[in-house]
Amino acid sequence: MRAFVTGGAGFIGSNLVDRLLAANHSVVAFDNFSTGQDAFLEIARSHPQFTLVRGDTLDLPALVEAMAGSEMVFHLAANADVRFGVEHPRKDLDQNTIATFNVLEAMRATGARRLAFASTGSIYGDASVIPTPEHSPFPVQTSLYGASKLAGEGLIQAYCEGFGFQSWIFRFVSILGERYTHGHVFDFYRSLRTNPSRLRVLGNGRQRKSYLYVQDCIDAILVALNRATEKVNVLNLGTEEYCEVNDSIDWITGDLGVSPILDYTGGDRGWIGDSPFIFLDTSRIRALGWKPKLTIREGVLRTLDYLRSNEWVLSGR
Amino acid sequence: MRAFVTGGAGFIGSNLVDRLLAANHSVVAFDNFSTGQDAFLEIARSHPQFTLVRGDTLDLPALVEAMAGSEMVFHLAANADVRFGVEHPRKDLDQNTIATFNVLEAMRATGARRLAFASTGSIYGDASVIPTPEHSPFPVQTSLYGASKLAGEGLIQAYCEGFGFQSWIFRFVSILGERYTHGHVFDFYRSLRTNPSRLRVLGNGRQRKSYLYVQDCIDAILVALNRATEKVNVLNLGTEEYCEVNDSIDWITGDLGVSPILDYTGGDRGWIGDSPFIFLDTSRIRALGWKPKLTIREGVLRTLDYLRSNEWVLSGR
Repeated sequence: MRAFVTGGAGFIGSNLVDRLLAANHSVVAFDNFSTGQDAFLEIARSHPQFTLVRGDTLDLPALVEAMAGSEMVFHLAANADVRFGVEHPRKDLDQNTIATFNVLEAMRATGARRLAFASTGSIYGDASVIPTPEHSPFPVQTSLYGASKLAGEGLIQAYCEGFGFQSWIFRFVSILGERYTHGHVFDFYRSLRTNPSRLRVLGNGRQRKSYLYVQDCIDAILVALNRATEKVNVLNLGTEEYCEVNDSIDWITGDLGVSPILDYTGGDRGWIGDSPFIFLDTSRIRALGWKPKLTIREGVLRTLDYLRSNEWVLSGR
Repeated sequence: MRAFVTGGAGFIGSNLVDRLLAANHSVVAFDNFSTGQDAFLEIARSHPQFTLVRGDTLDLPALVEAMAGSEMVFHLAANADVRFGVEHPRKDLDQNTIATFNVLEAMRATGARRLAFASTGSIYGDASVIPTPEHSPFPVQTSLYGASKLAGEGLIQAYCEGFGFQSWIFRFVSILGERYTHGHVFDFYRSLRTNPSRLRVLGNGRQRKSYLYVQDCIDAILVALNRATEKVNVLNLGTEEYCEVNDSIDWITGDLGVSPILDYTGGDRGWIGDSPFIFLDTSRIRALGWKPKLTIREGVLRTLDYLRSNEWVLSGR
């Protein structure tokens, strides 16, 4: 198979690229390096079946040119930062919604017909059913990030109906692990490295969140591609547990051997549009034979190991 | 109140403008006249509280300029034709999703904080629950039109959370009545006027659809604005009945006194992405004290009366 991976130099994308190459697929990685890193493609670059294209998903002709000949598209490129939507609403629209439209149009132009899409559990907003299944009640969006991914899902589904595409839409919890470059473990690690005596915590620390280790995430994607056969396959990805932000802080500070004073900003949400409780029902992907190998705690610790060995990523943004 | 109505020269928009003016509100109608008609503003134009701005919702500076000073925005401008999405996918993205983003940005720029939005029952796709309530299971999109409106809903909801807006999102069935300029009654009437002996019918005629008379639709909007007080109010609008396309054909041919041979194109869908059964649960809007005055049949007959008295609209597009 010839696979096309948008965001192929990013956190999840580059890990996926390595896995696809190891499984003897040809891979074209497409990335604008806004958050992607050359270093993440160190292994891939030495592989004869690998091609890197520097380009932007907002540039449709470049997408079409790079995608030509690919059968399977993994669309991972995105503005993945959920917190700052209200500071620049246009960014989520452009990089998530319009970019997804461009990927679909490039598929239509090149004849690619299979698409895996990185969506998010954030589209459930303040979920009314927890753990939240894929067929939960029609949600109300609470973040521009979630809204932009919902728009991407809708476009993909309509293209499946209108143009005979097949899709796998993955609603991720937060992903952790090697090449992780943003999120709460990143922020806490960087902060504690500078000042181990105090830690600013958004909200009251009681927010309940879910995380998944990146290799477990990729396992799930590959299992689903083989075993989920609907025209549109929507699948939650996560572990069967959640943790409080405070649990995560305990694991991180314990691992680092520090005891900071915690400065809570207060309130039950870390930011506008933050969901105080994210916990997805993953029965559907489990029924396909997948289960995660790492717990949330193990994922957090694996991420700390990675950050410790790769401190360059802390200044890389 | 000073109201701003996008699509104010269109079918529903111009009827709303007349109603708002009659209720002593100031109204700015904003329309690019792509489907809007000068003639629809005949009554409004003589009103001192009425302003017409010719402009496009894709032109953000023009929107901002025209919206300044308005408190309440009715966003009705759209590519409202659900059938032709696959012929020009960019049109729904531009005119429905990006245009809605622009309306929200214009509101942010001008300080308008209340928004009524014309969404659609098409966003339920092939609904798994019928009649379909607002909190039905998370749907899968089947049309680019539905996807583009879903994206608009998500953006509006995220702006309500992020910027303190309040919104009323109306999921319409197909609307009928005075100034109706597209849809099956229009198509059938025009076709039968040219050739009363044969009628081409998309699908098998067994598709079950819902319709609502335009003045009932506007009544519902005005009731909801007064009585629905959530930050985000999502409301289905429709009658408590549905009809088959064949029922509608009987009413139309009976009213016209013709007996055409019916040429069915076949299949249970009229077009790609067509939903074979649209019937919305309207308990929520009914609980606010609204109910429609006309049945579907009465709405169809009222529409025929309008078309008969205004045959210019048949050639107007």
